[in-house]
Amino acid sequence: MLKGIAVSEGIAQGIAFCIDADRNKENCEDSYRKAESKDEESARFQEAMTAFLEETERAARDLEKRGMSEEAGILRSHMEMIKDPSVTSKIKEEIDNGCCAEEAVDKTMKFFADLFEATGDELTMQRAADIRDINSSLCSKLTNNDLMDPAQLPKGAILVIRELTPSMAVKIDPARALGIIAETGGYTSHAAILARALGIPAVLGVKGALTYIENGKTLILDGISGIVLQEPDNDTKKEYNKKAEMFQLQRERLNVFRGKKSVTASGTIKEIFANIGSVEDAESARAADAEGVGLFRTEFLYMDRTKAPDEEEQFEAYCKAAKAFSPDPVVIRTLDVGGDKDIPYLHMDQEENPFMGFRAVRYCLENRELFKTQLRALLRAGAEGCIRIMIPMVTCLAEIRGVKALMAECCEELKAEGKRFDPDIKTGIMVETPAAAATADILAEEVDFFSIGTNDLTGYMMAADRGNAKVAYLYETYQPAVLRMIRDVCKAAGKADIPVGMCGEAAADPALTPCLIAFGLDEFSVSPEKVLATRKKLSLWSSEDAIAVADKVMSLGTAEEVKQYLDSLKKEAE
Amino acid sequence: MLKGIAVSEGIAQGIAFCIDADRNKENCEDSYRKAESKDEESARFQEAMTAFLEETERAARDLEKRGMSEEAGILRSHMEMIKDPSVTSKIKEEIDNGCCAEEAVDKTMKFFADLFEATGDELTMQRAADIRDINSSLCSKLTNNDLMDPAQLPKGAILVIRELTPSMAVKIDPARALGIIAETGGYTSHAAILARALGIPAVLGVKGALTYIENGKTLILDGISGIVLQEPDNDTKKEYNKKAEMFQLQRERLNVFRGKKSVTASGTIKEIFANIGSVEDAESARAADAEGVGLFRTEFLYMDRTKAPDEEEQFEAYCKAAKAFSPDPVVIRTLDVGGDKDIPYLHMDQEENPFMGFRAVRYCLENRELFKTQLRALLRAGAEGCIRIMIPMVTCLAEIRGVKALMAECCEELKAEGKRFDPDIKTGIMVETPAAAATADILAEEVDFFSIGTNDLTGYMMAADRGNAKVAYLYETYQPAVLRMIRDVCKAAGKADIPVGMCGEAAADPALTPCLIAFGLDEFSVSPEKVLATRKKLSLWSSEDAIAVADKVMSLGTAEEVKQYLDSLKKEAE
Repeated sequence: MLKGIAVSEGIAQGIAFCIDADRNKENCEDSYRKAESKDEESARFQEAMTAFLEETERAARDLEKRGMSEEAGILRSHMEMIKDPSVTSKIKEEIDNGCCAEEAVDKTMKFFADLFEATGDELTMQRAADIRDINSSLCSKLTNNDLMDPAQLPKGAILVIRELTPSMAVKIDPARALGIIAETGGYTSHAAILARALGIPAVLGVKGALTYIENGKTLILDGISGIVLQEPDNDTKKEYNKKAEMFQLQRERLNVFRGKKSVTASGTIKEIFANIGSVEDAESARAADAEGVGLFRTEFLYMDRTKAPDEEEQFEAYCKAAKAFSPDPVVIRTLDVGGDKDIPYLHMDQEENPFMGFRAVRYCLENRELFKTQLRALLRAGAEGCIRIMIPMVTCLAEIRGVKALMAECCEELKAEGKRFDPDIKTGIMVETPAAAATADILAEEVDFFSIGTNDLTGYMMAADRGNAKVAYLYETYQPAVLRMIRDVCKAAGKADIPVGMCGEAAADPALTPCLIAFGLDEFSVSPEKVLATRKKLSLWSSEDAIAVADKVMSLGTAEEVKQYLDSLKKEAE
Repeated sequence: MLKGIAVSEGIAQGIAFCIDADRNKENCEDSYRKAESKDEESARFQEAMTAFLEETERAARDLEKRGMSEEAGILRSHMEMIKDPSVTSKIKEEIDNGCCAEEAVDKTMKFFADLFEATGDELTMQRAADIRDINSSLCSKLTNNDLMDPAQLPKGAILVIRELTPSMAVKIDPARALGIIAETGGYTSHAAILARALGIPAVLGVKGALTYIENGKTLILDGISGIVLQEPDNDTKKEYNKKAEMFQLQRERLNVFRGKKSVTASGTIKEIFANIGSVEDAESARAADAEGVGLFRTEFLYMDRTKAPDEEEQFEAYCKAAKAFSPDPVVIRTLDVGGDKDIPYLHMDQEENPFMGFRAVRYCLENRELFKTQLRALLRAGAEGCIRIMIPMVTCLAEIRGVKALMAECCEELKAEGKRFDPDIKTGIMVETPAAAATADILAEEVDFFSIGTNDLTGYMMAADRGNAKVAYLYETYQPAVLRMIRDVCKAAGKADIPVGMCGEAAADPALTPCLIAFGLDEFSVSPEKVLATRKKLSLWSSEDAIAVADKVMSLGTAEEVKQYLDSLKKEAE
């Protein structure tokens, strides 16, 4: 029995299909051979590169369609690297020196990887790892040795892998892969997000998986508890068959909540909205029975291109999303660039601490024309459907006033141009910085709604980068400091009589539902697949019971105690 | 008239001495000449490098003695770069190919600088700038063309410069330089910190200074208002002579407060402590009339060496500092490594967001032996003098308990070894994360004192890196969110009946004194030169007046309004 982190729910039984990418990487040198013609080798390299670029472009587009623009960005940066003239000219030089294409690629890529690695600079060294990945992809193209391609996965297989990379994930066919096991990764890793998006049960962070699991053996993967079993006996198989049935049954039971209102056990009406990353997502979020969109990330519109989308293009996208949900609201977040999200043509500087840097509304207020284009598109779309504007990363009143002044300018212009727009469009803010949370009462005076972004709020409160494994133990929404801030923001919204939503991951955490009800949260914005489960969870708690739980939680001094107490409730419920 | 940012107080009249470092850099190529003997060129290079290393080492030590370990770290990294075998071997190669030493150095350094610059990675590109700086230093050594050396400054000069670098600053003789004007830099830049440490009036961020100011012209520099005048007329000269006299007079008036208690106008006794960075600083802080040390940064003990100081060495240092202040307390902060402070032999990873990374108490709790050595030294020194232990970067109760458990272990060991130690040593925390501030009441239950670190607290609250110029406008302690947190932490300390101090820069901001009195701050820990001014400021405010000011401040919604109101008080007082 192996144990890892359950990151994508479900039970799978299947045949182990092990892929050891590292082994593949080492095989490049074996493919060196005598070059017979420089032209031929040059042509072979061109062909492999074209195939690599096409495949990567396709994969990036796939990711973007699923709203995974960040992951797509990683693939695109690979494309840029191999197209770099300093790389291609060195490969050409090696071929001119008599190397075969494989050797020319391998030598060149290793040269650059070594160079980057020698800097000792972590960021530059990461680039070295990317280059080695590209090298491995190109070599397998040149040698037609793409045996390790997950697309070759036999039906009914459970993929066992060192690390699930975005480029691999997009090749996985959910109709054939029953589950994914990886040696690295955690709940919030890219791999986990991808696995959940694919709807494939997955257990990550399974140390030694490739050592202990043998190709072709029967596996059981429990994506709920994180357990992996090899060659289970018949009793175990039966037990897990039952578990799988139960899981399926629960999924079906959730369907009872389809088309229903979202109501607590004591009759308070709430809203369950969805987080989406693209216009296409709007359709599927509607199909998942979301009552609106609580967070439309507009970064997607700006990625995968060489300049920002113009007003018309944005206008159309926002109208389309609004139409999918009409007459329900679609909350559109203005451009949240920076932090870990880069858009090359916006020429953002590399920063020492990007999470505490020039990002989101800070960038937009300095780049007025870019921002006004988006605001104009939003104001115009507001006249065609139910749209709300949400400003990310607000820390103080001055920023809200800055945005409002720009909006007023846009309104003047649109009026002069005789264009239809909504002069009274509802405008709210993400509450995701400690400063905004601590002054929620002040900010509430000048906005129409709040949406608490628990992911960033937790990170800033705890001064812990969620992407940094070494401080992951501090990045914890159950921390009393974070829960207090969430409570206070809800209270301030209630006092100012504006609605308060939540679009961070905590909104979909069933353990927190009673606290959020007690705090007075109005709107839960979750990923589409969590809509029904959240609605069900809401229906189980009366205000009275929820308040009792919240009171107890808020009396506890540590995250550990909060977790233990909430876990004990879960056990009671079972 | 030019205007910049006044960063170091004082009025200076003197002769402009312009240094355009950039011009110097371009001059390297002019010094190429025919090499006559490889051995000779090789020896010349060795000599220049030795001189460079010695000078840099001396400068780094100077900085460290003044507690500026970070700045020293920059110089030390320059030393590492030039000693790198890949650099020295390439220089040797160039000399073997017939280059003179100047050309060999210049070519090699440009080669590496170009290489780093080509990565497009901001961090790596910064390294390129460092390499060009080293190149320029070495070239001037080789050509004996060190005319630009600020050590050559004539007496009575006002230095006009593009950027004040640490390596330049340490060469400046305060007996000859009357003032510093630089085109770049702000109040919290390294240059500003250095100028204040040197006690030289300075105005930074003077755009176009090198264009408009002519060498040899008479200048007036007003380090209070940030004004720079060239060739002033006699009336202006007289006016500024008067201002300078006034400034001197004020300085002398402060001396009235020497040896006095720190008391508000209504008789409440406060404490004015000093922030220090080394044992040597303790003496000068005592001489500056500090009533104790509110922050002894122990990083200095760990820097400039190849392994951590052992228990005996630390014990002696802590005893010495305690002795300088006996019987008054010395608050010693445990190792605050990480963030922007690197100690090479601790092998810390480069992080995406170091300020939100694996630093300070987080690192120490994972590196128990290193931490226990420091704790044992502190516990033992506590038996010899009045020492308090302060833990940096605390976010939650679990960390405090973790440190206390380690301290208990240390006590057990020391007892078994029959060593003297203080089992009841007072242990407090820095309140510098939003999480600690938001749960100050919970944390107060388990510690003996608080010290509010306003620098980091402001940065985390506003999610703004203080080192990032693009978000400097948000990094502002006058932000209502930050002031609220400071107020709440003081309130929590009062309720738990533990003392609360402040060791961030806000403690010495005279405009904030009434607010801090009203909040109930007990101890103001400031840089030694601010001790008397802070004591004077305290004496001017009664509790009643202070509370009235604080009430008004806390009713304001923006940092701008707070600043305007506090500025208006300053004008009234004048």
